[in-house]
Amino acid sequence: MATSTTRAPGTSRADLITDAALALLAERGMRGLTHRAVDERAGLPQGSTSNYARTRQALLEATVRRLAEREAKVLAPGELPMPDGRVQGEPTEGPDALVAGLALALHRYLTRHPELLICRYELALEATRRPELREFFDATGRQFREPLVALMTAAGSPEPERHALSLVAWCEGLMFSCAAGSYHRSVPTAAELRTGFTELLRGMLGPRGQ
Amino acid sequence: MATSTTRAPGTSRADLITDAALALLAERGMRGLTHRAVDERAGLPQGSTSNYARTRQALLEATVRRLAEREAKVLAPGELPMPDGRVQGEPTEGPDALVAGLALALHRYLTRHPELLICRYELALEATRRPELREFFDATGRQFREPLVALMTAAGSPEPERHALSLVAWCEGLMFSCAAGSYHRSVPTAAELRTGFTELLRGMLGPRGQ
Repeated sequence: MATSTTRAPGTSRADLITDAALALLAERGMRGLTHRAVDERAGLPQGSTSNYARTRQALLEATVRRLAEREAKVLAPGELPMPDGRVQGEPTEGPDALVAGLALALHRYLTRHPELLICRYELALEATRRPELREFFDATGRQFREPLVALMTAAGSPEPERHALSLVAWCEGLMFSCAAGSYHRSVPTAAELRTGFTELLRGMLGPRGQ
Repeated sequence: MATSTTRAPGTSRADLITDAALALLAERGMRGLTHRAVDERAGLPQGSTSNYARTRQALLEATVRRLAEREAKVLAPGELPMPDGRVQGEPTEGPDALVAGLALALHRYLTRHPELLICRYELALEATRRPELREFFDATGRQFREPLVALMTAAGSPEPERHALSLVAWCEGLMFSCAAGSYHRSVPTAAELRTGFTELLRGMLGPRGQ
């Protein structure tokens, strides 16, 4: 097939389709995401996307799954704080390591993949209307939140659940603001993010992380 | 006209149309917002919305303006902290008053108008693709941010701009999480919001607001 020439080595047809869906979502929003537009964008014969995901719901679910895979790569484990509070290549412990890891992960996402952020919010809004899609979001949310609760507990938080949610909210707000809000022309630097996280944690845990 | 019976006293045709557009946006997203659907939703004769706002861009701009009006009512001045740090009916001063005012305004928005939040994020995402729409968002963003910068300065912040943006990000994240994210089934209480704000400000300003 002619299309095989446009495919990066090792990219499956499923990835080709869902990556095209993500690109369309970022550029044109939910209105621009149609089976036919995905075929065109992926350089595949008409009908390919319908064969892969017959309904709109199936296409959206596959797109959410692909988004989760790509987000997991951006927030790669090697760059995230470890359960005991250490960060790879930066062998400090406690809140400093937590801050460094979070700032690094967030900065990577903000600077390298703004288009994935748009997709994330398009799909989250669509999930308010599609309970089946909601489940995917809740599952990915838990994946991110549960380690944070453990980290807050380890850092001495008296209310690790609420504190983890507060941290998530701040990250979410920054991500949204960078993608589509007040920060959309000026992503904070890694140093500014680190300072912001430090302030947040200081307010929660006190000046010495306790 | 038959439709006048469905109109609340004092509601203009423009408000009727843009309120219908907001309702559609919340329920069906950007794909569900069409001139024809707005006519139907508003109970107006076919063509009414086109007469009012010929293009999609014009309809979206009118909808953003209406959203800003309705948000301004939710975040009414009487319930927001005043420039000198006082809150109506709660004559304390400094960071405590700031926290009380912010928590109150945010809680009102989260509990009473979740549908406006969805509209807000739908339109913000659309604005990433329509520079003309972006201007409206930037203007409303400034309206909210500038008083916050003044409040942070008054509260003794050494970096009022960055701190105001950090507060906005946390609010934005909470709003998004409540509308479409990890909090979507459990909006924080006013007390939890107050604690969250207190922690944030304590981290920025130190334990005594300095």
